[in-house]
Parts: sequence; structure tokens; C-alpha cells
Amino acid sequence: MNSFGRVFRVSIFGESHGPVVGVVIDGVPAGIPLGVNDFRTDMLRRRAGKLGTTKRVDRDEPCIQSGVFDGRTTGAPVTITFPNEDVRPSDYEEIRYLPRPGHADMTARQKYWGFNDYRGGGHFSGRLTAGLVAAGVVAKKVIRPIKVHAYIEEIGGTRTGYAKLLEELERAGDSVGAVVRCSVRSVPVGLGEPFFDSVESLLAHALFSIPGVKGIEFGAGFACARMRGSEFNDEIIDTNGRTATNNSGGLNGGITNGNEIVLRLAVRPTASISLPQRTVDLRTGERTELRVRGRHDVCIALRFPPIVEAMVAITLADLLLIRYGYERWQVIFQNGGDTRGA
Amino acid sequence: MNSFGRVFRVSIFGESHGPVVGVVIDGVPAGIPLGVNDFRTDMLRRRAGKLGTTKRVDRDEPCIQSGVFDGRTTGAPVTITFPNEDVRPSDYEEIRYLPRPGHADMTARQKYWGFNDYRGGGHFSGRLTAGLVAAGVVAKKVIRPIKVHAYIEEIGGTRTGYAKLLEELERAGDSVGAVVRCSVRSVPVGLGEPFFDSVESLLAHALFSIPGVKGIEFGAGFACARMRGSEFNDEIIDTNGRTATNNSGGLNGGITNGNEIVLRLAVRPTASISLPQRTVDLRTGERTELRVRGRHDVCIALRFPPIVEAMVAITLADLLLIRYGYERWQVIFQNGGDTRGA
Amino acid sequence: MNSFGRVFRVSIFGESHGPVVGVVIDGVPAGIPLGVNDFRTDMLRRRAGKLGTTKRVDRDEPCIQSGVFDGRTTGAPVTITFPNEDVRPSDYEEIRYLPRPGHADMTARQKYWGFNDYRGGGHFSGRLTAGLVAAGVVAKKVIRPIKVHAYIEEIGGTRTGYAKLLEELERAGDSVGAVVRCSVRSVPVGLGEPFFDSVESLLAHALFSIPGVKGIEFGAGFACARMRGSEFNDEIIDTNGRTATNNSGGLNGGITNGNEIVLRLAVRPTASISLPQRTVDLRTGERTELRVRGRHDVCIALRFPPIVEAMVAITLADLLLIRYGYERWQVIFQNGGDTRGA
Amino acid sequence: MNSFGRVFRVSIFGESHGPVVGVVIDGVPAGIPLGVNDFRTDMLRRRAGKLGTTKRVDRDEPCIQSGVFDGRTTGAPVTITFPNEDVRPSDYEEIRYLPRPGHADMTARQKYWGFNDYRGGGHFSGRLTAGLVAAGVVAKKVIRPIKVHAYIEEIGGTRTGYAKLLEELERAGDSVGAVVRCSVRSVPVGLGEPFFDSVESLLAHALFSIPGVKGIEFGAGFACARMRGSEFNDEIIDTNGRTATNNSGGLNGGITNGNEIVLRLAVRPTASISLPQRTVDLRTGERTELRVRGRHDVCIALRFPPIVEAMVAITLADLLLIRYGYERWQVIFQNGGDTRGA
Repeated sequence: MNSFGRVFRVSIFGESHGPVVGVVIDGVPAGIPLGVNDFRTDMLRRRAGKLGTTKRVDRDEPCIQSGVFDGRTTGAPVTITFPNEDVRPSDYEEIRYLPRPGHADMTARQKYWGFNDYRGGGHFSGRLTAGLVAAGVVAKKVIRPIKVHAYIEEIGGTRTGYAKLLEELERAGDSVGAVVRCSVRSVPVGLGEPFFDSVESLLAHALFSIPGVKGIEFGAGFACARMRGSEFNDEIIDTNGRTATNNSGGLNGGITNGNEIVLRLAVRPTASISLPQRTVDLRTGERTELRVRGRHDVCIALRFPPIVEAMVAITLADLLLIRYGYERWQVIFQNGGDTRGA
Repeated sequence: MNSFGRVFRVSIFGESHGPVVGVVIDGVPAGIPLGVNDFRTDMLRRRAGKLGTTKRVDRDEPCIQSGVFDGRTTGAPVTITFPNEDVRPSDYEEIRYLPRPGHADMTARQKYWGFNDYRGGGHFSGRLTAGLVAAGVVAKKVIRPIKVHAYIEEIGGTRTGYAKLLEELERAGDSVGAVVRCSVRSVPVGLGEPFFDSVESLLAHALFSIPGVKGIEFGAGFACARMRGSEFNDEIIDTNGRTATNNSGGLNGGITNGNEIVLRLAVRPTASISLPQRTVDLRTGERTELRVRGRHDVCIALRFPPIVEAMVAITLADLLLIRYGYERWQVIFQNGGDTRGA
Repeated sequence: MNSFGRVFRVSIFGESHGPVVGVVIDGVPAGIPLGVNDFRTDMLRRRAGKLGTTKRVDRDEPCIQSGVFDGRTTGAPVTITFPNEDVRPSDYEEIRYLPRPGHADMTARQKYWGFNDYRGGGHFSGRLTAGLVAAGVVAKKVIRPIKVHAYIEEIGGTRTGYAKLLEELERAGDSVGAVVRCSVRSVPVGLGEPFFDSVESLLAHALFSIPGVKGIEFGAGFACARMRGSEFNDEIIDTNGRTATNNSGGLNGGITNGNEIVLRLAVRPTASISLPQRTVDLRTGERTELRVRGRHDVCIALRFPPIVEAMVAITLADLLLIRYGYERWQVIFQNGGDTRGA
Repeated sequence: MNSFGRVFRVSIFGESHGPVVGVVIDGVPAGIPLGVNDFRTDMLRRRAGKLGTTKRVDRDEPCIQSGVFDGRTTGAPVTITFPNEDVRPSDYEEIRYLPRPGHADMTARQKYWGFNDYRGGGHFSGRLTAGLVAAGVVAKKVIRPIKVHAYIEEIGGTRTGYAKLLEELERAGDSVGAVVRCSVRSVPVGLGEPFFDSVESLLAHALFSIPGVKGIEFGAGFACARMRGSEFNDEIIDTNGRTATNNSGGLNGGITNGNEIVLRLAVRPTASISLPQRTVDLRTGERTELRVRGRHDVCIALRFPPIVEAMVAITLADLLLIRYGYERWQVIFQNGGDTRGA
């Protein structure tokens, strides 16, 4: 379904080439200062138009449709929409029957018996992540002083000098994958549940909803498969649970241990590339060549940091509100987010 | 929370050293043949007593407490319990104030203000996975003819000759991590939702609830971060959506594309090792040495294949029942699981 | 929370005097013809401007913001908004500190620590039911050929000649309560769950979310408290479960029995009346007199039939899709809604 | 489904004539003193063997299977089972094909395609309410000092001298309906949500899951349908929201206003009566006479007070924990339940 969260619940809607994309955020505590300017930084970080990202540039001005009054959240659902301004649906008409490899064209068509909006990926478009980023802006305010920070760690296997690689690929009409790293500081101890709602479960659930994520690991992650227990186990060094190393990525038994949460995401190359690709023609059943036109990112991961931060903040907002409650949250919030006395 | 699923919903309960561990499975279609013998194979695969696993051996005889009548499921919740027979709680008394590195001892204590059952990890114990495997046995019947197959791909970085490594580590009192691979065949097209309930999201949510999983990847996974789009994109070769390669792991846009679902899990080394470890004494706040006694696996991943299969089957049962419905499922089931005419 | 449903899920948002009220409908099967004209009839039935309803008249033109393409639903969330055109917030400024008796003014203020949008009841306004009616229009298409029919059975204790009573009350500046009756025909057998998700539980959950409902009864309802079992029990007259009487209101054990579902709702008088009322001044703590200005219905129940039908249809859509599944639903839908062969 | 609640979640299982009935209670805060003796009072109140209730007497000894350690809850799911001791399944064999009027025999058979456990109503049996009462005992501890009190207000239309009526009906082999009233004191302001999760919605959802409830009303309830607004509206008399009257039953806009919550339930007559009844023979399709043997209550409502209290307490526990949070709840609990400083 298109919603996520138990008490802080986010629902997204919209299509790449419909009137709007947007988000409804339910369970937002009342009294949080919120205005359109608050969205600027993260929307810009997500925005296209830089090296390696598509030339399609929506202005991404958020419209606050509900849940805010006199500059503060009211406790009612906060709805934010983004008009789709730069729409060229004709770009996509020709590929209606030529499903793009690596895309949801084929699965969407089959799942929805051919009624899906195929223009630009429709509801499956990365454009929908505008709503996620907007919800993340609200969530970040809810979880302060917790700090979520995501960044590109590696593109195409290299950790430095991306620019040249991206230019080459753009010229070649190809794309490339990347690794995004995210860390979370100042997390209180005790968030998460032993089974099914472990923090890893919830974060992975949230992060795999970002189109293009193909892997996630916490702490030492896949490297732990080669480690000894004597090497992996993090020595506990004080009664608050601080550890000398952080192979477990801030999580034990699915629950935050107060150390930094660390996770890494594998992001696949942009599916849409200009190079000719082989696919099947759904009208004739014949295998054929496809050239995807339109404007596409060389590396979708370049837009990911604010989206990843958003999904992490959304997940933590839900856990925090369950742990501390709305009544207590209000006191904590007035107090600058200090949960120690809560 | 300790439950998972929208219409096929699994809830687990119990502690390592309490009277029982168990599971309630809600939403099981009526009419499925089910008896205690059905659990034998997977419970044995999960069982301890083999090389590399602990010497604690519960007999793991399932008791069907509800939901089955005259050898078939009734539509009411199926409850299965496993008595805890081989309980030696005294093993754990000494570590009450010495939290084991890599364990949930410390987080459980903090989350539950010291009221958690600390014996053998309590509710955080791997013992709870008996209930998961039992639910998996039921789920596998629901999803037939879908075939879920998990196996150990790699232990401590090697893909062959584990036995010698495990013996050495057992002698040394150490443990080791592993990679578990799982594939799913005969999956119908169209399961999963575009956002939040993508198949990746749901499977990751389910699989990270297995204690010890630190990473997951689908298809090419982390390798895709180094790939070009021209290399990663899977060529579509027929109108059913079959692809020439399977880098996307059977999933596009979060939805099954009819190809094999492929995923890999990183499993950390067993946290409990006999080698002395450094921790903190919660009574005095002083850093000290701990020697964990009791009986422990050298490599917990050795028990994982049936547990991983269970969580995957549980997730797919939920998705299948939503997609095909209980009424239709009944027809499909009588028909040997053939969804083509559904 | 502001959402309802397991697979057919409705989320509402908006405030009486904000930019819009609206609804997101998730889980709508793809392929249903849907256009703005489809909303006309039920929106008009709900509309104000008739005898006994307020003079505030929003045009109630629905804007389909997502989920529809080429005149049919796409499977993605359907979002519908209604601009708030006829807004006079100044009417409400004076009552900010004089909570209206019978209204949510006081509870909203306390729940949201004073940050609620108090203008016209804000998110608590009956205006929000526009979104419910819109979702009901979609739900009615999903559940066809099931027929939901609601009507005013009684106003102020009388079953005939309301008009005179309403005119008198309007002149007097007072309001009056009513009973709304709803029946549902052509319901398939077997919807609902034995506990917690009984059809009564779900319908009551849905219907008590309509502001002003204070009671609900099914079949013989409160009259059954005075009946003998020999009188109450409905004789079963054929193997399909048809009954000679219908005291149980079409439901046994929480599950539809194939007979007509019958329910009645008690609706309180409109809280806002022109007559002077006693309340407390929140600034001074003193008890004082309040005269509510603005435009109000004499009897809110007059607008209820389409709202009640909407909530019933929404609840049944969820149950039907769980029972029959999306794949099967598509076949049934093409077949005019005939579930007999499903 | 067989579970209820967002953070305090109750799941029930079992059949009338299976090994056990039971309940899993998830989300119970850690540290609550709990032992088998705590269940005695409410289990006795629910118990059969008194005038007007069946002669079947299970001892109703609760077995705590999980979630309690050293006499206190641990934070893990609390599982409680009741063995079914007094089982005489043969009583029911003869009615397998003669569905009892007013019972779930027919709907269960149709919903589960004939695989339901038909003995004594199986999972639909009132016996399942033992688990609800057990969960209520835990919930009442969570919500203290809130006091929930339910009692029989009226049997067969009379408010006094039930005994003679019940004796007559028992002799006649008939049964009778009743009204149960429930009030809740010391409820904090601000519980509940404006739409869908209004307190009325949640309480009605919970209470309609008790087999036999056919109606519910809050405050003035159905009487409000005959009232004027000037009569119905409750005058607010202080800045805490106390009101002079309580026609709204402690709830405005779906949210607790701090006054007493008052509700009334219509309970149908026991469906099983000894008098001959007409039904259909499912083997032949012919209409025939049925005499229900076995042991049955004359008035099921006699057992209802602790069950009603349980469902109300469960609902409030969920709302309270969401509002105040687990961290804060712990402080409040140590403080005797005083939420004023929370």
C-alpha cells in the first residue's frame, strides 16, 4: 500500500504526468512551526539540473493544503502537493508497447491489467519522491535533536572523482550505480521491537520503497559474513551502552543501543539510458530494439541523500512518538528535543 | 510489534526459558491438510545438535492448540506451541549484570527498564524462530506451487569446506558469520505495491526480524553499485516479461515480474562465544572481562535456511491472498495452485 | 488516525476554512470508469441549501488529482480534492475562547494544546464529509451490484411531516436530532471475521467516524433486549441461508449471511444553534453566554444519507476485495459484479 | 481478523472444544505485577453456573505462557491460555447439518467452505471471551486509575426482579435479551482521533466483537434523535471542560472531554434455546424442526459485565499508550497513574 507508519503515517499519491504529486502526513504533533520555506533546502538537494541528473526541472514549490494554521501544525493531517509543471507526455507515447528494461513498465502493465498510467512511469516515477522528501522535512522537525545525514559514498565503484565518470557516461548515453551511506546521531536507547518491528526491519521497509534501492546493510553489513565473533562483537564500555566499535550499526536485538545508526544502500544504475536496448514489442511479441528518449539522470543516486534521510526520519518519528507519546513529546519538543528527562 | 502481515498475519510469543515458545497464524484459509508430521522436516533442518550448532536440543514437538479440526485448517487462527524442555536458567544468572557484547542484553534491559527476562536472551532468543519455522510450514502450503529454497552460500568468506573451519572455531571458542541465499520460483506476476509495500520492502521487513541478519540484497544487489545501466538492465524476451538476465532479482518497481526472486542475507557471527570478552559490570560501572558459558552455535546461519524460507513464504502468502482472495484461493488450491486461470 | 481500511484504504484531510478538503483512496482496482460527473448525484444529496441545512454553499466540484488516466482508475491512489470556496473565517474569531457546547472546540483545543485550527471546527468540521462521499462514490463502483440505501427514518421523533417542524426550529434558532436507516442488498455470504473484524465492528467503526452519530443498531437492535430467543432467532429457510425474519440484520457471528444488512443510526441535533447558550470563557474562567453566529443546519442528519452510504460502501469494498482478491475482482467486475461463479 | 489495537494489541485464538482458548497481548509495558490470582475476580464474574447461565463449568484457570518473569510483565507478549476441560463434543454432532437459528453455524460453514470446527460454535463460541477477560485484567492495570464499570441495566425490558423471569424462561426452555451499561471514570482529556479512530469508533469496534451485541449508544444515544439542540448540548462549566449535563457521553468530536464516558449495549437473547425451532436440513434442503441440546445460558448478558469492561479497558490502554508513550507511562505508573503532570 501507499502508506507507512503506525502513529506517524505517511501516504503518497500522484503520477509523473498527472496534475500533482503529493503526500498526506498523519499523526504530526500540533505546534510545530512549518512553512513553505522549510522545504527549500531538501527539495533543492533532491532537485534535478545538476551534473548527472535529468534536464527536466520542476520548480518543486510545495503547496501546504492542510494541517497548518498560523504557521504551525495543528495536529490534523498535513497535506503537501507539488504541481507537475514540466510535463511532456508525448515523449512516452512511443514506448507504450515497448517496455523499458529495468523499469516497472512491464510489471505495472501486468499488475493493473493495462490500465496503469504509463507516461513517465506514472505512479512508479521517481517524481513521487518529492512527497517523501516533504514528509521528511516534517519528520526531521519531529525527531530533533536526532541528526540524520546521508551522502554518496561511491559511484560506479570509485569513491573520488565522480565528475569525469559522469560526464563520460552522459556522453555515452549510459548510466551508473552507487552506494549511499546514512548515519543517525543522538538516537535515544530503546526504540524498536524485538521481532517484526526491529529497527532494521522498519528502516529497510522504508528505504526499499525508494525506487532503485537493491541492497541495504547495517553496521559491518555484508562484511560481517567474513568476520569472527571475537572480531565482530562490540565491547560495551559504559553503563549507557556505549561501545568501543560499532559493527552492529547502533542496533542490538533490533533495538537502538544509543550508538550511531549506520547503514549503506546499493542503488542501481538509472534504468532509462539513451543507448539502444533490446526488449519485446507487446503488440507483436517480437524482440526488438528500443531507444529511450526523454531526459534522464546518469546516476539516480545523486538525488538520494535527502530522500534517504526523509525515509529514515519518517521511521524514527513513528518510533519516537510511540516510545515517548504525544503528550510527552510536546514537553520534550519545547525543551529542544532533550529526551533524557522524559 | 510481534506480529506481521495484513491478511495472513503471524504473531509470535514466548521466551527462551519460559514454559513455551509459539506462534498464532491468523488468516489461514480453511481446508488445508495440517498435522504435526508436516512440521518435522523444517523443524529438523532448524534443529541444533549438528556440527557448528549448540548442544542444547529441544525436541521441538509442535502442539497444535487451535485452528485445526479433523486434520484440516478451519479458517480460525492456527496456534502452535513448542514446550521448552531443556532449560538450564542457572547458566545465565551470572551474566545478569554483565551484558554480553553483540547481544540484546543491554538494549532489552534499557528498553524494558530492567524487567526483561534476561535468561538466555528471553524473548530475544533465537529459540523464538521455532515459531517462525512453524508458521512457514503453513505458509508454504498456502503458496504452493511457489517454491522457496534457501541455503548457506558462504561461511567466513569461503564457499567450500566449511567443516574444518567450524571445528577449528569450536575448539577456539569463537564463531563466524555467513551468507544465506534464497530463491523463489513460480511466482506469479503482479505481487507487491509500488511504494512502501514493495516486495523488497516486505521481504526485508520480514527477514530483518530474524535475529542476526545485518544485510540483504536483491538480484545483483551491492554489485549493481558498480554496474552501468547498459549492463544491469535485464532484456525482456517475451510478452510474459521473462528476461534474459536477472540482475533485478525478479522485481521491478517493487512488483514481481515472474522471474525468479533472488536474495542474499548477511548473517553476523554468533554473539555468544567462549573466548573472554570485555564488557561493563552494570552494578559497578567498571569495565571487566566476561566468559559466556552455556551452549552456543559456532555459526547461527547454519540454522537459517528453514527460517529464511519461512519468512519469505509468510510474506508471499500475505501478498498472494490479497491478490487472489480467499474465495479464489480455494479454487486455485483445489487446482494444485495453478493461478493462470485465476 | 485519519485512515481506514486494510486493502481499500481511505485517508481524509483538510479543514473547514483551509484551502481544500480531500481524500486519498488507496487500493482501488484498476480499470474502473471514473470522471467528475460520477460524483454529482451524491455530492448534491449531501449538499447544503435545502430546507433545514445551512446557507453556506460550496460548489463541491471534485478535482481528481491522481489515480485516473484516460477516464479509468489506474490502480494507483485516487486523490480527490474540493476547494473551499465560501470561506468566512471572521465568523469564528469571536468564539475562539468561547467553546461551543456540544462541539469539539474544547476537546480539540486540549488535545492539540491550543494549536488546532478553530475556524469552523477546522478538521472536525462536517465539511470533511465531502471527502467521505467522494470515496463512497468510488467504493460503490467497486462493490456493485451490492446496493446500499440510506434514508431519514425519523426526525425529532416523528416519521412524517418534517417540513413544518424544521421551519419552526429554524425560526426558533434551534436544531433537532434524527434517525437514519440504511439497508444493503445483494451482499455475498461470508464477509467479515469472527472477532474484532466482525461486520458490525467494522461498520460501526466506519459510521461513528461521521460527526454527530451517537448510536448504532443492527437488525432488531435495542428492541432485541426485550425479546425472547424464540422470538428473535431467524428461521433459516433454505440451504443458501435465507431467513424468514431478519432480526439479526443480515449478520450472524459477525459474518454476512446473505440476507439484507439493516442498521439504524442515532444522529444528535446540530450542535451550533442560534439560541443563546451557556459556556465558559477560557480567558477568564467565567461562565458566560454565547450566541453562535454563522450558518448552520437545523438537522445535520438531512445530509447524512450519502455519507452513511459512503461509509458502508467503503467498509464493504475492503471486505469484498479481501474475500475475492484483486485478480478475481477484475473478472467479477467485467461480469457485472456477479460473485456467484467466483 | 482476530487481533485489535495499534500499540496495545490483543489476538485471540481457540475453539470451544479444542485443547485451549487463549490470548496474546502485545505491547504490554514492562514492570506490571501480574500473577494468576489477578484473574480470579473477573473470571469468576464471567463464569457460568449461576442462575441464568449454563451448567457447563470450566475451571477457567489461566496459564501464563509468556511475558511474565519474577511476577512482573517483561515487555514481551503476554500469552494466557485456558484449557478446555469440560468438553462434550458429542452433544453437537447431531446438529452438524441442522444450523441453529441465530447462530454462526450457517455463516461459518459458508465462509469456511465446510471446514469450520462446528462443535459448540468452534471459534465463534462465547468461550473465546475468556481470553478477552484475561486481556482486560492486564489492560485495567495499564489504564489505572481509570475505572471501568459495567453492569446489567435491564433484562427483557425490566430493570428489577430479574430472578423470577429467568427461572420462568429456564423452565420454558427460552432465553431473553438485555441491556448492559458501562461507565468510565477518571479518563484524561484528549484521547481519540477526529476521524476513523474516534473513541466511539474504537469502542464500538471493540464491543461489537463480543458475540451477541446488536446495538451501542453513547450518552443520550438514540434518545438524542428526539431532542432539540438546546436540550442536548452540554453546558461547559469550567476551563477543564467539565459539563453540567452529559448527553454527549464524555466524548466530543470523537475525543474524550474528561467527563464520564457512558455507553449502553443491546444484547440479543441467547441463540441456543431448548424450545423446538424451525431450520433447514443442509443434507436434504428440507425445512425441519430442531431441538438444541447441550447446556446454555438463559441470558448471555449475565456474563457480559467483565467482558464489556475488558474490551473498554483494552481500547483505552491502546489510546493511553499512544497519547502518553511507553517511557512516560512508566513514570505515570510508578506514580499511581496520575497523568496530570505528564
